[in-house]
Amino acid sequence: MSGIGSLDVFNADHPELKTNMGVDYVVHYKISKDKAEAEAGFTQLIEALTTVGIACEVRNGDETSLLVFLKVASEKHLNAHIYRERVQDWLYGVRITAPDKDVENEFANQAITEAERLRTVYLLITKPKNEGGAGIVPKIGQWKDVASIFPLHNHSFNRKWITQWSTKYILSEHDLDEIRDKFGESVAFYFAFMQSYFAFLIFPAAFGFGAWLILGRYSWFYAFVNSLWSIVFFEWWKKKEVDLAVQWGVRGVSRIQRPRTQFKWDHEAADPVTGEAVKVYSPVERLKTQLLQIPFALGCLAILGALYVFCFSIEIFLGEIYNGPFKSYLTFTPTIILTGALPALSTVLSSFAEKLTERENYETVDTHHAALVQKLFIINFITSYTPLFLSAFVYMPFGNLLVPYLDIFKNTAERFASEKTITTQSFQINPDRLKKQMIYFTVTAQIVNFALEGVAPYLKRRAFKEVEKVQSKGKATANNDVPEEHAFLEKVRNEAELDIYDVTVDYREMIIQFGYLSLFSAIWPLTPLSFLINNWVELRSDAMKIAVNSQRPIPWRADSIGPWLNALGFLSWFGSLVSSAIVYLFSGDAEGPGGDPSNIVAWGLLLSILLSEHIYLAAQFIVRYVLKHIDSPGLQKERAERFSMRKQWLEESLGADVTESPIPPTPQAGEVITRDALEEEARQLSSSGGGTPEQLFWLRQQGMDETIQIGRMLISKKKVEKN
Amino acid sequence: MSGIGSLDVFNADHPELKTNMGVDYVVHYKISKDKAEAEAGFTQLIEALTTVGIACEVRNGDETSLLVFLKVASEKHLNAHIYRERVQDWLYGVRITAPDKDVENEFANQAITEAERLRTVYLLITKPKNEGGAGIVPKIGQWKDVASIFPLHNHSFNRKWITQWSTKYILSEHDLDEIRDKFGESVAFYFAFMQSYFAFLIFPAAFGFGAWLILGRYSWFYAFVNSLWSIVFFEWWKKKEVDLAVQWGVRGVSRIQRPRTQFKWDHEAADPVTGEAVKVYSPVERLKTQLLQIPFALGCLAILGALYVFCFSIEIFLGEIYNGPFKSYLTFTPTIILTGALPALSTVLSSFAEKLTERENYETVDTHHAALVQKLFIINFITSYTPLFLSAFVYMPFGNLLVPYLDIFKNTAERFASEKTITTQSFQINPDRLKKQMIYFTVTAQIVNFALEGVAPYLKRRAFKEVEKVQSKGKATANNDVPEEHAFLEKVRNEAELDIYDVTVDYREMIIQFGYLSLFSAIWPLTPLSFLINNWVELRSDAMKIAVNSQRPIPWRADSIGPWLNALGFLSWFGSLVSSAIVYLFSGDAEGPGGDPSNIVAWGLLLSILLSEHIYLAAQFIVRYVLKHIDSPGLQKERAERFSMRKQWLEESLGADVTESPIPPTPQAGEVITRDALEEEARQLSSSGGGTPEQLFWLRQQGMDETIQIGRMLISKKKVEKN
Repeated sequence: MSGIGSLDVFNADHPELKTNMGVDYVVHYKISKDKAEAEAGFTQLIEALTTVGIACEVRNGDETSLLVFLKVASEKHLNAHIYRERVQDWLYGVRITAPDKDVENEFANQAITEAERLRTVYLLITKPKNEGGAGIVPKIGQWKDVASIFPLHNHSFNRKWITQWSTKYILSEHDLDEIRDKFGESVAFYFAFMQSYFAFLIFPAAFGFGAWLILGRYSWFYAFVNSLWSIVFFEWWKKKEVDLAVQWGVRGVSRIQRPRTQFKWDHEAADPVTGEAVKVYSPVERLKTQLLQIPFALGCLAILGALYVFCFSIEIFLGEIYNGPFKSYLTFTPTIILTGALPALSTVLSSFAEKLTERENYETVDTHHAALVQKLFIINFITSYTPLFLSAFVYMPFGNLLVPYLDIFKNTAERFASEKTITTQSFQINPDRLKKQMIYFTVTAQIVNFALEGVAPYLKRRAFKEVEKVQSKGKATANNDVPEEHAFLEKVRNEAELDIYDVTVDYREMIIQFGYLSLFSAIWPLTPLSFLINNWVELRSDAMKIAVNSQRPIPWRADSIGPWLNALGFLSWFGSLVSSAIVYLFSGDAEGPGGDPSNIVAWGLLLSILLSEHIYLAAQFIVRYVLKHIDSPGLQKERAERFSMRKQWLEESLGADVTESPIPPTPQAGEVITRDALEEEARQLSSSGGGTPEQLFWLRQQGMDETIQIGRMLISKKKVEKN
Repeated sequence: MSGIGSLDVFNADHPELKTNMGVDYVVHYKISKDKAEAEAGFTQLIEALTTVGIACEVRNGDETSLLVFLKVASEKHLNAHIYRERVQDWLYGVRITAPDKDVENEFANQAITEAERLRTVYLLITKPKNEGGAGIVPKIGQWKDVASIFPLHNHSFNRKWITQWSTKYILSEHDLDEIRDKFGESVAFYFAFMQSYFAFLIFPAAFGFGAWLILGRYSWFYAFVNSLWSIVFFEWWKKKEVDLAVQWGVRGVSRIQRPRTQFKWDHEAADPVTGEAVKVYSPVERLKTQLLQIPFALGCLAILGALYVFCFSIEIFLGEIYNGPFKSYLTFTPTIILTGALPALSTVLSSFAEKLTERENYETVDTHHAALVQKLFIINFITSYTPLFLSAFVYMPFGNLLVPYLDIFKNTAERFASEKTITTQSFQINPDRLKKQMIYFTVTAQIVNFALEGVAPYLKRRAFKEVEKVQSKGKATANNDVPEEHAFLEKVRNEAELDIYDVTVDYREMIIQFGYLSLFSAIWPLTPLSFLINNWVELRSDAMKIAVNSQRPIPWRADSIGPWLNALGFLSWFGSLVSSAIVYLFSGDAEGPGGDPSNIVAWGLLLSILLSEHIYLAAQFIVRYVLKHIDSPGLQKERAERFSMRKQWLEESLGADVTESPIPPTPQAGEVITRDALEEEARQLSSSGGGTPEQLFWLRQQGMDETIQIGRMLISKKKVEKN
């Protein structure tokens, strides 16, 4: 967190940080290539915005760009939009209670949050024209000069936020609610997840520390408890997620989906629910494209796997066999290759994943995003865990068998070195390799990552600014800013240069971390403790990232952590397989089966995997059963709201007594009539042709007392049952 | 189906079968022990019924019983009850659309079915007094003389029903709807399930026949296809179930739960949803009792397992080792022991299961029933599948090793036989044993079962009647029936003697059958074909059972096949393990590993189980994914109804335009004003103290045209971005 104090944003003396001039959004308009085109585009932009009731002011940006400031012209108009959104929520079942019929009452009962306002305005700007928006989509088609559309940071809130969070250990519900009100549910869900994960980590951190002291590495008991913990955490979070969604009034919001502008459609069809015409893309066509995911995944595995195996072989050869000249330098070779090739390969594969997802041509932003996340998860899974898989399941058990194949490097090296300076030492499996790797991934890598994520952007920006200052020296007033506005405009120019915040990156980091915990932490039981410490920092540095290093995010809604939930469930399950295999291979004998595969009993390994998985599934079943029977406050609230709403509707329209039991007719007072007289009456009715057999049947006993009388008489003539 | 034609019910000439005299229910009142008590009880019965608006007529039953005929006194009163039920459905979310505010319109739109009427009347009779019912529960407490309360069969419907079903191959939706209207959703769901299962069986029957011809026994491919089929069937049924529930308007009806009269409560608490006081039993106490299920299951396994192992040992000893005198008679010993001991043990264990469930003290009929079903499933699982498990996993692989232990029988036998007549032959594993057993369970047992279920009750009743006739000879008119009623009353007396129909028994039979298919059908691929034929008959004989051999069932509602769904899922999954193990053990070599366990490679067995299970889970995942993306017509209908209901409400209360986009204010016509003049204006505002910086910021450009003008001017001065 170095350098934070020095950031302008945290300097309370700056008056320009106190106002956003009532600006809702800023459009960063970059002039590309042709000025005439840019002018025409700009005209269209202002016209489109004005048409939907947005007021604009234009100012200078940097040397090649303008800043257009947007504000909704009429608050009443905006309120009508927000009210309409709320009505739509109710129509689709996101809200349980209907909005108040009186618009003002509605807003008095449930005030408009900043996030709600900003989201509505953003939709107004970006929605297609036929849906009542201005249809402006940054960087696409006629809007290619629109570099970004972003809201302005509320600096006084950010200041308070970061200060508060840095000084407390546990975040309260209130803290999360505040995030939700400012940045929307999508970001709030990330922090809620982080907070829950952090709180849940306390147990395995303590237990892991104990296990490290007492049980040592590769402990059955640690692996079992860890797996159980991951089940409880996963199942608990699924419940918590629903609870939060209800509390924030967004449950089911993923059903109201934002259409993707880039979606290409085949034909139109009537929506089975609303009856409106909707655009459809053949699901069979899409399935064909989706099937490409299989070769994609195999390709990723082959490419990244080959890279890892290659580096791994060199590393073993150099580290544990090679004994020739420059050894101390040469040992860095694999690291250098990896550091160079891995990010490049990842980028290539990721962009390929994006293209693939694009071709799958989803209707909505959410489905597109979920499909992309799935592919990114595959890439990340391979890049993150392959080194440990190779060490645990190839190097350690089969090392001795594989070493002869590494002679290829020796021969290559000998060809280059004319003198016979290449010597080799006999290969010895390094028993600490797995632990060392694990420590690298759980401690070193996390610190490096923190530095890359938190500090680097700041330094980059600083350096960039210095360069700019030197370049624009002497033309400090080139922007012709009015003096009262200058400080404010400079602040906005800074924000325009910031990155766009993408919550996916943060989720990915956490899910991959969870994977290390679930799959490999039996190797080093201090893993959860290290993650606990890391995540305390991470949570705050993520807040910093939003507040300082990124543009203020568009406050999208969400009702869960989305596609990451599946990844979480997968890793938790897969952990039961991998950790049992690791424990079986290495427990007891700290060095593992000592590189001799004949020491491994295949059926023992398979049996331990089989057992472990079934214990996992049984435990999951029990945890689900128990959690299902603990009523969730959120769902309870939802049911109660629905019930009271319906009851109210009922009482309004039908009167209060309809749910009460109807009052039966008063019993007929029985008259004392003899049986014969009655039957006579019935017979008369019959002979006069006035009664059907059915009528007559019910006329034999008139009234309760008579039935009782006759019944008793019949009973008195009966035998008593023998039993 | 012998003897059906001779049953009275199918004789159209009987006029008494054409009317039920407008009777809703009949109370079969049996006088037990004390006549005075019986008279008092009878008085209470009639009083209680009259109080809730039910008219009664009493007639003679048999020698120790009365028949009380019940009819709702006022149709209007009944309609109020039914309307109230519908409102309650809507309150709890079972109905999507609110009932029409006008009661008559409501019933015109959605007519009252026979099932709805009968259910409402039954609830009126049995509900506790404080909930507006008469509180009459057969056989319990003060109502111990009430042997049963049953509705009367609609014989003309039954006649038509059975005739129709016997002459068609496939039941239509309409057939199921009719069952639903007459017997309620609970029975209709059973027939819907049977019908779906039957239709689904066509594929494995054909495939199995092919496999039997071409692939032979123990085929990997058959087992794979069979497992895949069971996944598809299970997942498809889960969807179908929901669809049917929506179609029948009972989705979520399991939430409106019938309270159990026998429930004992600890304390009262406020219901979190409705706010009403509800009776609560400590869930911790219940959990303690529920944990007794574990020793219960182990106990069942031990007792039934021991019995099977004992009989199994004797059988092998006698059949394949023993060669002494009376062999041909002695071979029947195990069968005799089993036939005698098994039903007795099952009954003891079942009644123990009932007691256990009783002690678990559930609030509602449904949870009680589900808990009971779970225990019964365990008992049935053990009794049904143990013989095959023993043969497949003990006798076949380990037979030779176990035979020496059977010497105990030889020694015992020798002790009894003074002469040395006991000779033994060398043990030879019978390779056909497994197949023979499988054929027994899938063909012979099904036929025996059909006979027991369909024909035996009829014969029993016939015999019983003959005895009665002989006994009551000469007192044919002892009942003093009015001649016009005599035939009708005789019919009712017959129905009073019939069994109560329990759909659980029928479900159990089908689920256990599904288990044979899923677990063991690789042994004999003709299994599904045999089941297909059996089920065609079964479906019709079950209809017969209801129509002829049972009292008309109370038409309860249900929204699924209930706890059997879990059993189905379990068997489908377990089948993937068991059938892969069987195929691994016996494929290739038809005789299996020949009794020598060293031929079995443990890791091979484990690997095939592990692989098979994961292929199963992956296939399940895919099938679920695909089925999830096929929209279910039922859910679609539900969503559409909800949507249109809300939309209508909205239009009624807010006007049609609220879901339309609000019209933005017309854009301001821009005036041509120079920039300097504008800034001057702003400055004036500022110097006169009339504007905050925010106001001034938005005043610099007045109107759209000016913003455009200034923007274009700014652009013209910019550099073009280099890229």
